[in-house]
Amino acid sequence: MSQAIRFRPQLELAGTVKVDVRNVRHPHYGRYLEEFAPGQVFVHPRGFTFLPAQMEAFARTYMQCNPLYLNEEFARACGFSGLVASPQMVFNVVLSLGVQNDSEKAIANLGYYDAQYLRPVHAQDTIRALTKVVDRKERGAGKPGIVTIRTLGLNQNDEVVLQYQRKIMVAGQGDRPPTTPLPSAADGRMPAFPWVDDAAVTLPSFPALLPAGLTGPSSYYEDFTVGEIIVHANGRTITDEHLALTYAVGNTHPLHFDRIYSSGLSGKMSGDPIVYGGLVFAWLEGLASRDVSDNSVWELGFTEGYHTQPSIAGDTVAALSRVLAAEDAPDGLGARFGIVTFQLIGVKNVGAADALARFGEDLFVKENDKKDLGREKIDAKIFEIERRLLIRKRG
Amino acid sequence: MSQAIRFRPQLELAGTVKVDVRNVRHPHYGRYLEEFAPGQVFVHPRGFTFLPAQMEAFARTYMQCNPLYLNEEFARACGFSGLVASPQMVFNVVLSLGVQNDSEKAIANLGYYDAQYLRPVHAQDTIRALTKVVDRKERGAGKPGIVTIRTLGLNQNDEVVLQYQRKIMVAGQGDRPPTTPLPSAADGRMPAFPWVDDAAVTLPSFPALLPAGLTGPSSYYEDFTVGEIIVHANGRTITDEHLALTYAVGNTHPLHFDRIYSSGLSGKMSGDPIVYGGLVFAWLEGLASRDVSDNSVWELGFTEGYHTQPSIAGDTVAALSRVLAAEDAPDGLGARFGIVTFQLIGVKNVGAADALARFGEDLFVKENDKKDLGREKIDAKIFEIERRLLIRKRG
Amino acid sequence: MSQAIRFRPQLELAGTVKVDVRNVRHPHYGRYLEEFAPGQVFVHPRGFTFLPAQMEAFARTYMQCNPLYLNEEFARACGFSGLVASPQMVFNVVLSLGVQNDSEKAIANLGYYDAQYLRPVHAQDTIRALTKVVDRKERGAGKPGIVTIRTLGLNQNDEVVLQYQRKIMVAGQGDRPPTTPLPSAADGRMPAFPWVDDAAVTLPSFPALLPAGLTGPSSYYEDFTVGEIIVHANGRTITDEHLALTYAVGNTHPLHFDRIYSSGLSGKMSGDPIVYGGLVFAWLEGLASRDVSDNSVWELGFTEGYHTQPSIAGDTVAALSRVLAAEDAPDGLGARFGIVTFQLIGVKNVGAADALARFGEDLFVKENDKKDLGREKIDAKIFEIERRLLIRKRG
Repeated sequence: MSQAIRFRPQLELAGTVKVDVRNVRHPHYGRYLEEFAPGQVFVHPRGFTFLPAQMEAFARTYMQCNPLYLNEEFARACGFSGLVASPQMVFNVVLSLGVQNDSEKAIANLGYYDAQYLRPVHAQDTIRALTKVVDRKERGAGKPGIVTIRTLGLNQNDEVVLQYQRKIMVAGQGDRPPTTPLPSAADGRMPAFPWVDDAAVTLPSFPALLPAGLTGPSSYYEDFTVGEIIVHANGRTITDEHLALTYAVGNTHPLHFDRIYSSGLSGKMSGDPIVYGGLVFAWLEGLASRDVSDNSVWELGFTEGYHTQPSIAGDTVAALSRVLAAEDAPDGLGARFGIVTFQLIGVKNVGAADALARFGEDLFVKENDKKDLGREKIDAKIFEIERRLLIRKRG
Repeated sequence: MSQAIRFRPQLELAGTVKVDVRNVRHPHYGRYLEEFAPGQVFVHPRGFTFLPAQMEAFARTYMQCNPLYLNEEFARACGFSGLVASPQMVFNVVLSLGVQNDSEKAIANLGYYDAQYLRPVHAQDTIRALTKVVDRKERGAGKPGIVTIRTLGLNQNDEVVLQYQRKIMVAGQGDRPPTTPLPSAADGRMPAFPWVDDAAVTLPSFPALLPAGLTGPSSYYEDFTVGEIIVHANGRTITDEHLALTYAVGNTHPLHFDRIYSSGLSGKMSGDPIVYGGLVFAWLEGLASRDVSDNSVWELGFTEGYHTQPSIAGDTVAALSRVLAAEDAPDGLGARFGIVTFQLIGVKNVGAADALARFGEDLFVKENDKKDLGREKIDAKIFEIERRLLIRKRG
Repeated sequence: MSQAIRFRPQLELAGTVKVDVRNVRHPHYGRYLEEFAPGQVFVHPRGFTFLPAQMEAFARTYMQCNPLYLNEEFARACGFSGLVASPQMVFNVVLSLGVQNDSEKAIANLGYYDAQYLRPVHAQDTIRALTKVVDRKERGAGKPGIVTIRTLGLNQNDEVVLQYQRKIMVAGQGDRPPTTPLPSAADGRMPAFPWVDDAAVTLPSFPALLPAGLTGPSSYYEDFTVGEIIVHANGRTITDEHLALTYAVGNTHPLHFDRIYSSGLSGKMSGDPIVYGGLVFAWLEGLASRDVSDNSVWELGFTEGYHTQPSIAGDTVAALSRVLAAEDAPDGLGARFGIVTFQLIGVKNVGAADALARFGEDLFVKENDKKDLGREKIDAKIFEIERRLLIRKRG
């Protein structure tokens, strides 16, 4: 199983190899607009083995309060085979695995759509990611275009654990050299891309008696009524930690950790590194979690998610949720579980209650729709998304 | 064991649900003074599964030097069943689990008393916490009162691993809405609260030969004489990391991570987020650890612990220990182990040796006693506590 | 296996033990110049159990892109018995374990030499470290001297996993008290120190088919030609995180985390805490990793490594690699693997491409040789080293 190999001693060589500054290579990652071709499939590098301490650490980093992600006894008592990786972690990791191919040259992340968590990720699962280019929209010479991609996260059994769609804004190549080439399949064909349009979700058979006492008393299905706004009390000041957290999930876009890069940009992204949006989403979800999701048994997914303003270190973020729908779960689960759709809104540098007082209903109108509706955009608003949760009934 | 469930596709809903800004809920946690009733028992949410990498990470975060928390081989050679969770981690986690019920509305943490570590926490142990309200002292209209609580940390076998008492200062409700209600027991009775007044400590049967060579040469029982002051050489500059570390242990008090909240306060707590005291305690203990505790086999507990000044990011903390007592261990352990009581003193923005030179014996006088004794309070002093350790004899 | 012990209740004692400020001890670690004696062996304290989540966390902290350190399935498919600890982590941990004896009093780390990784470190391995003093060079009264040491990292089976040599600059004791004494061996003899001069490397028997698709397409052995310079695209801004990361690897030198200490120094080290060099090395290696090392199956070692300028929080570091040698691997491995030697250069506060444009070939000339060569030293250059990797052939 092992072998002992003797290598020649290492000798100093630098002085013996003449320096030739014209013999130089500049590997670059991400893709320029022209490099995206609809139908193309990217097999993303590295993969990621989920380990329990990382799973707990992620949940704690964003103060996610659902004991499924923190308490192994609780997770087992709910029917899972062990501690559950927070779906938000799965999303962050899968997206980050793809940045090197998908978006390391992106100018902006335009939106998240149709994200579906299709099965739990547990300790020792190894997740890899694939992306398929769905569409490329050019908007005229010199203008960045819009690329639509779909991404899958697969476990070591080739089962899809997450699928979602994303739109990104990407500039053309101009006179820059091309990026690092795609590894080409041996037979020249694109890898399989098993996106499913009407996918089933694989969940444990929940036991008759779910554990009691470790979740909030006011976050059962019956506690949510359509139209209600929930103001989450605490905010979170984001520090320089975000550079390290971007590294922690494996996102390779230099906008988030390289001040030379970020301060060299023009426009509103110029200056300090911008907080990677996945982290902002995670913090906001965490701020909301003890009010809305600690009695959930599954995060179904999200759609129409937009980062409407960037955040930087020093910003304090806060969150509000609005109940958009509440209905019984299907397939015989309805007696014990319901599905609640929340609109999650993030603001910065204003408390959530103050934001509601100041901006009122405009907070809940999509920023992209405001021009058509004749409403003012809100600079303090940083995020909007709709998310669906499968939540226990109090019974 | 698992089921495949098909959910309806998620459709965008926000525009279809009319926004009603009067239909709003503001969940708040912690308790106002009136909401504490002696005899009440809070079952705290979530729990926490201890995982080995987290246990090591905690010990490293505070540079705790006892190999029991860092070296699994060493821990086993000492008779433990595996890596030992640092008692300081157990304390931080148990206290933090309770913040949501106990102290998220607290104005100040007044003191720690009678903390006892009753058995080791190992990997895969899941710890939950309970608090009993012992006393509520009102101090007149408009003035915050003082609440005395006892807290227990229990493992998955319902064994108490830690018990301690705490006093906190809490304001009255005034015209604010009540906080989130207690979950009520099905039968209306309070949960059991197994505090033990004369508790035994469960320890491994230490092997005849303890491991040698990995601990300091000058921190055996025989090295400590009553009255001796030990000046710990290094300090630690606290950075903004403390916000993330507060999240890491699960402490939900916004004073420690929400600059909008902290800067909205009046008085000396106003401004940057205050470092959660449990973290300060941990850093000070770590700074002392290679001088006093790397040959300890158990941390028995602590009492009369006070955070006498707050710390913020940018402060450099340093520590001194004074030997208050040294005696043989009981029950046949005395031939090989002794009990040493240390007074641990923390200072900020002055080196430990300089603090001793500048403040002399006043450093070791309790700040609360100084008025009566006609002595000056020391602004640079941030912490004082008495701790007891079970320490190997050199033999 | 366990025992229940009843201890007397802890009572407050501080007020009962008279404070005597002359009864004081100042434990100090590290060694003054006179305290190093050639032939001396230090057995370093604590040790370190490697745990998988820590191993992944380390690789992620420095964005190391080789899936061996991130993806357990991949590591097994390459013939390893499980996830592999990044050699850079092994180096950082072993060096840090020794700081308390070797270099906590060092004024400067002068260089790394002849580092050899002799076998993989896997989860649950417990590593301890030994140092032997090889040479002490005095440079006259009042001047710091130069100490040459060799350090070994050993696993729980007493197998050497890493050996390297280091030179450090250390001041004399002057009128300061001696540091904490060495633990003396029972028989007065020095511990064994199993450094091997022509050591074999123990590697797995690589399977006939190595995994495909998770590593970069342009970092196979065939992609590297001697003399080529590779400019790594992204930089990394270092934040205050470095204080916590110094703690995380267990380095006890206060220069890296105690602002009172660092600002009390004179010269160019005065001011903010200096980033521990091992962390800088790790970040630079990480920035280079997807271009040069994600198809490596082993890191053989490094030599002639110098930190030529210090870094502090706020600095942005970037990296370049130059190919110094490429040859077939020995012992029948040559058909499938080659050995590539890279010169790794680090710069700060300038992008890697800009540094090449500005400083040209001088970037690759050793700073120590520049005086003799009549070339200018480069303030923006922070690091230089030669490293050897065993890299897959594309085949």
